[in-house]
Amino acid sequence: MDKVGFIGLGNMGKGMSINLSKEGYDVIGYDINVSSFEKLKNHNIQRKENLDEIAKETKTIITMLPDGKAVKNVWDQLINIVEENSILIDCSTIDVQTSLEVQKMANLKNIKTLDAPVSGGVIGADNGTLTFMIGGKETTFNKVKALFNCMGSKSILCGEIGAGQTAKICNNLLLASTMIAVGESFKLGKNLGLDLNRLFDVLSTSSGSCWAVNTYCPIKNVGPKSPSDNEFKGGFSTNLMKKDLTLAIEAALSSKTKIDFGQQTLEKFVDLVNKNEGHLDFSNIVNHI
Amino acid sequence: MDKVGFIGLGNMGKGMSINLSKEGYDVIGYDINVSSFEKLKNHNIQRKENLDEIAKETKTIITMLPDGKAVKNVWDQLINIVEENSILIDCSTIDVQTSLEVQKMANLKNIKTLDAPVSGGVIGADNGTLTFMIGGKETTFNKVKALFNCMGSKSILCGEIGAGQTAKICNNLLLASTMIAVGESFKLGKNLGLDLNRLFDVLSTSSGSCWAVNTYCPIKNVGPKSPSDNEFKGGFSTNLMKKDLTLAIEAALSSKTKIDFGQQTLEKFVDLVNKNEGHLDFSNIVNHI
Repeated sequence: MDKVGFIGLGNMGKGMSINLSKEGYDVIGYDINVSSFEKLKNHNIQRKENLDEIAKETKTIITMLPDGKAVKNVWDQLINIVEENSILIDCSTIDVQTSLEVQKMANLKNIKTLDAPVSGGVIGADNGTLTFMIGGKETTFNKVKALFNCMGSKSILCGEIGAGQTAKICNNLLLASTMIAVGESFKLGKNLGLDLNRLFDVLSTSSGSCWAVNTYCPIKNVGPKSPSDNEFKGGFSTNLMKKDLTLAIEAALSSKTKIDFGQQTLEKFVDLVNKNEGHLDFSNIVNHI
Repeated sequence: MDKVGFIGLGNMGKGMSINLSKEGYDVIGYDINVSSFEKLKNHNIQRKENLDEIAKETKTIITMLPDGKAVKNVWDQLINIVEENSILIDCSTIDVQTSLEVQKMANLKNIKTLDAPVSGGVIGADNGTLTFMIGGKETTFNKVKALFNCMGSKSILCGEIGAGQTAKICNNLLLASTMIAVGESFKLGKNLGLDLNRLFDVLSTSSGSCWAVNTYCPIKNVGPKSPSDNEFKGGFSTNLMKKDLTLAIEAALSSKTKIDFGQQTLEKFVDLVNKNEGHLDFSNIVNHI
């Protein structure tokens, strides 16, 4: 397990693979986009030309890819070329159904799998402070827990395969709807003439307290430093939140779960993307409610 | 200031007045409902027959009444009978406009005033752990801060008169909407087959964390003990949350603030009251979304 394959070395994969390498793992990488390796040249990440080279050299492979289609494409190949009892870990955030589909196919071939989407964004990836939400067997999880500890500060086994993806969309659904509620509360306070720093003092220490207020306050110059203090640059993009909310609403539809606020939250984020503000941090939503 | 008048000795006023008395204050009380004094008979709260008797004996009077109409009725009388430079503190949760109206009238007669609504409910009142959200002059606040310290664990000066009421409705608006978002997240997780204790582990330690999950989780046998573990008995009633949300939406309308989620949150709570579940804890809303 000292040699780890890493497929998908974009914004997130870069920091994650570097942190593995720093902790002494021998990381071999592949990315469809060769230029990804330019940012890695001062780090000990060995570039491989294709998936076959990865599968030949290691039985532990992490994928960090942009969407379900990319994951399916890569895993369909990996499943046919990795050795039995290899461990494939998908850290991408994708729809639960695709995640289950590729993992079940792998499991049928005696390949062990985990879905392990993350929260914490690019900063968390760079700093090794990600949270991993993990689905799969506990025995598999225990075998690779050390890897998660290199890349993040917390890993939570949420259940069988698919449970990591499910937990992540449930979390981001809650976060996005809460952020809108936070925006409404501050908007009302402002229009009623309240000093928003005092309102922060109340909300952050009362029953309204939440991560969206206490850690990520969406109001400029109120609360700890957050993207709202930097014109909503950086942070977690509206595009990515829209992606996660879309996954949540698709999962809600497929499981016949009626979630009014979630549906409207998605619509509000879609509106914001259509206004060409998808690149800004998602907390910018408070300016459009 | 060692003698304090307390008007309104119901569920909340009982614990608050007892805590003042325990800390050595000489509390004189009045309640339109004489039976309120039965629960106080083992405590050193002296019953007065009318507001005149209160006003004659002290320059520091607290009111804790059910609604704006009751506050207006009592304050209209008090304003004409208390001495100049008396301090009137209203701890009721009422609409901002009535609060401003009675305080301005008092201020014109050189009576000092504070609005100081609380959060923490009956348990907080009994245990002396309330949070006070306070509007008024800092000089007035400093003169009676010791009283708040007896009755609560925190008092936050939010701004000029009315600011306490405003901060409270902003907090409860956020709390109520967040509780619905929490309900949707757990509902989706449940329908997707997630173990809700694992979902709690994720939400309570990730960006979805909030008081409504971490302290007051609305799912039975999940998270710390809360009304959901006791069939939603006790806690903060749906009736009271509906009252606070109504105040919030009225304030939103009067200040031309559009708050979609807040409006729908109120409607959902009104529905729940109409289903004769107003007496149950407000977190029961998660079963009706």
